[in-house]
Amino acid sequence: MNKTATANKKHYEKVMMLSKRRGFIWGPSPEIFGGLSGFYSYGPLGKIIKNNVEELIQKWLWINGFWEVDAPTVSPEIVWISSGHVEGFIDPIVRCTKCKTVYRADKLIEEFAPNIHTSGKSFEELTKIIEEKNIQCPKCGGKLGEVTGYNLMMKTTIGLDTTGYLRPETATTTYIMFKRLHAFFREKLPSKVFQIGKAYRNEISPRQGVLRLREFTQGEAQTFILPEQEHDFADFKKIENEKLPLLPYKIQMEDREDIQNISLREAIDLGYLEKEAYAWHIWVAYKIYEMLGIPKKRFRLRQHLPDERAHYAKDAWDIEFLTQDFGWVELCGVHDRGDYDLSRHQKYSKQKMLVRSSKGKEVPHVLEIAFGIDRTIYALLEANYVKDDVREWLRLPAFIAPIQIAVFPLMKKDGLDAKAKEVYRTLRQTEFRVVYDEDGSIGKRYRRMDEVGTPFEVTIDYQTLEDGTVTIRDRDTMEQHRVKIEELTKEFKKLIQNPLENLAKQMI
Amino acid sequence: MNKTATANKKHYEKVMMLSKRRGFIWGPSPEIFGGLSGFYSYGPLGKIIKNNVEELIQKWLWINGFWEVDAPTVSPEIVWISSGHVEGFIDPIVRCTKCKTVYRADKLIEEFAPNIHTSGKSFEELTKIIEEKNIQCPKCGGKLGEVTGYNLMMKTTIGLDTTGYLRPETATTTYIMFKRLHAFFREKLPSKVFQIGKAYRNEISPRQGVLRLREFTQGEAQTFILPEQEHDFADFKKIENEKLPLLPYKIQMEDREDIQNISLREAIDLGYLEKEAYAWHIWVAYKIYEMLGIPKKRFRLRQHLPDERAHYAKDAWDIEFLTQDFGWVELCGVHDRGDYDLSRHQKYSKQKMLVRSSKGKEVPHVLEIAFGIDRTIYALLEANYVKDDVREWLRLPAFIAPIQIAVFPLMKKDGLDAKAKEVYRTLRQTEFRVVYDEDGSIGKRYRRMDEVGTPFEVTIDYQTLEDGTVTIRDRDTMEQHRVKIEELTKEFKKLIQNPLENLAKQMI
Repeated sequence: MNKTATANKKHYEKVMMLSKRRGFIWGPSPEIFGGLSGFYSYGPLGKIIKNNVEELIQKWLWINGFWEVDAPTVSPEIVWISSGHVEGFIDPIVRCTKCKTVYRADKLIEEFAPNIHTSGKSFEELTKIIEEKNIQCPKCGGKLGEVTGYNLMMKTTIGLDTTGYLRPETATTTYIMFKRLHAFFREKLPSKVFQIGKAYRNEISPRQGVLRLREFTQGEAQTFILPEQEHDFADFKKIENEKLPLLPYKIQMEDREDIQNISLREAIDLGYLEKEAYAWHIWVAYKIYEMLGIPKKRFRLRQHLPDERAHYAKDAWDIEFLTQDFGWVELCGVHDRGDYDLSRHQKYSKQKMLVRSSKGKEVPHVLEIAFGIDRTIYALLEANYVKDDVREWLRLPAFIAPIQIAVFPLMKKDGLDAKAKEVYRTLRQTEFRVVYDEDGSIGKRYRRMDEVGTPFEVTIDYQTLEDGTVTIRDRDTMEQHRVKIEELTKEFKKLIQNPLENLAKQMI
Repeated sequence: MNKTATANKKHYEKVMMLSKRRGFIWGPSPEIFGGLSGFYSYGPLGKIIKNNVEELIQKWLWINGFWEVDAPTVSPEIVWISSGHVEGFIDPIVRCTKCKTVYRADKLIEEFAPNIHTSGKSFEELTKIIEEKNIQCPKCGGKLGEVTGYNLMMKTTIGLDTTGYLRPETATTTYIMFKRLHAFFREKLPSKVFQIGKAYRNEISPRQGVLRLREFTQGEAQTFILPEQEHDFADFKKIENEKLPLLPYKIQMEDREDIQNISLREAIDLGYLEKEAYAWHIWVAYKIYEMLGIPKKRFRLRQHLPDERAHYAKDAWDIEFLTQDFGWVELCGVHDRGDYDLSRHQKYSKQKMLVRSSKGKEVPHVLEIAFGIDRTIYALLEANYVKDDVREWLRLPAFIAPIQIAVFPLMKKDGLDAKAKEVYRTLRQTEFRVVYDEDGSIGKRYRRMDEVGTPFEVTIDYQTLEDGTVTIRDRDTMEQHRVKIEELTKEFKKLIQNPLENLAKQMI
């Protein structure tokens, strides 16, 4: 995403303008006080989408055997020393010696010298590149200083004098509960848990709107597993023939970007993936985006290059979405973290994290899925945003759309409104999200609903009073068909289906 | 609660021991690093209860016309200056001049002089009371210093140098979106919104476990309303004859504590309540606790005494729960905040918060419901904790119980286990939360499920293989009845009902 961060954000702006106007996403927050980069709020319609995405993840993980937990977002410093974040969760920054403006050193280099690969470079190396390429302060042209480190965690004080940090991820707050969790699972492995909640990164000067947040929501799932269980994983056998759009690092090393649409079994046979258990986690993550209906062409699974991985990561794949303005952006990461986390927490807490295995006692390994909820919501909005000759509208899947059914009287007279309210009340008692609207012309009301992605409108017209039928208008085709009022609920159960339900039937 | 904070916490300890042992609530967190007062985590079973309570509030508020929003938990200082929290969200503290231990001055006075009323007292007045009553440091007997103020917000830095605070409530983060919300609602009032999320209070030394948290979850609903709409509120007419357990301040002023079980209409006629709209909000809040099945004797609606109210509050009622160890504790507050909030934000942001009314333009008023989610969960656990001669168990309502159905083979042989797994898989595809367990004797398995509040167990026995029936055991009576496998789902739909569904039918 970095390389084009300053490029034309035309499409992004269009999506965000609609989002702000219609109550999906507002910001930067707090808007009435000028706003602060990296903070956004969900309006009423955006919040329903957020709830729907979170619920999809919750239910899908539950079906796959994961149990949810909920830990504090604020923890004392020792937790983040133990996790490695105090030492390692650091961005390289550089300050202009003249105007004192501070920049992310790596991002600055990538802007001025797009062909230079900055990941994995030391502060000294980055300083040297800035000197060699003669990169100056973009604001005042002044000389830039030395590259230094800047910890991305937000700091606070608990009580009078205990240093605490806002968590930069949910994962660590789950790992440190391992002993409790292991007892809960009656010491059986693999055991699966997840946590959905807020996390914080104090980015220096985030400039990519909702794609780079300082406060964001993560959905992070972990499987605690014995090394001996990773290569022979029963759940994997059921799905090993499913094909995923993979971009392994070996392909990328050849400067190629062609997606390998191969089965997970083939990916293992070809050496792109090593472990069955890890491959299964990639599949679990992938299914969420398939269910959300993100078009196949706009997402891919990209393996991290060896020098791109965190030092503890044994393997890492990202689910990426192709934005129109920023190129590919990560929506979700799947990580093979080995025994890094539990070993660190064992060391710093002096509490044993060992479990029984055929080899005696071992520290379990961790496989992780990390969903970025906010970026996933943005991807949904962008992927479904359409501006054509007639309309500006959202083609959201019916099960995700904030409003699923709108009920209109054709006119606000002749008893049409009373009848429409009656239909509305009946539909409100179903599981669907329904609104009633009688303001303005019927055409205007259709457009208003198209714009927020409402898939169906029910209109009560003069024929309704004669034969008890209403029209159902389809957002995508703008066509209408007539249905008897007493068959409306049945009809909508057919029209609005949650893909999770079918998948659940296959899985359980 | 204050007066008995140091009293015997026998019952609380029992509830928390079960909670910790079985994966409801763990803490103080982070446990492996010794824990920090005021921080707790939800284990897998507690988290399901939390989700259920939140979903009940979400759905109930939605039925009543509230739309959900989601704002950042971190905001720049100006927000909290504008809200009044920088100046006013302050606890009185006092430090021992000898050992330097810090205490909440008001709590200390209440411990040593229980008949002294501290609320509303200035720092000078509190200092004087400490001197007059000769209250000394409980730890070392040293002389206590002067009472000073201590701001309860957790502070942080955003970017390099912007001061921010973690929100002490969700409410303010909703109010400051008013202009956006008003546009979303097409400028119609009253408009109703809510937000569920984390909030933080940096208590000096919280000593009441999960009842006094530094990080907690709030569910806060607001109605923006014109003053002229408050006295004539259509929704109120539908429920004005419902009786609530009210304890008005006028009764309390007579040193009485007898609950007035009267209708809301009577409460208005008697002058206990003034506004129909506000009375309706009290009813909305009350219904949640009724649906949760908290026994009537253990909760009440208590009006704040005039000197107990925040200076901006026109009226305030708390829903209180009678704990065994701490007396009455607040679970939920309902507040008439007048135009305080929007007027402040208008002043500090210099953005107009005026709306059209019959009088021209006015700043809308705010009526608020604030649910304390964590305390509500604790109340549920305590109210349903039972220890009798035979068992230690939870009598949780079936719709709230983390596990609703457990499926057991009588023995792990003769095909009983295979059959049980088949039944389990069928039930997993319903909306119910189901587990399978074959470990240990059947008696042990029943006890395990009683302890976590599972209302029903399905056992597959030898008769199942003959006639296709299974037993359903009832947690409360420990009695069993036989049902045909193919009728299980229908049977559980009858046995497990969500009170919201019936209420929704009456309301919509």
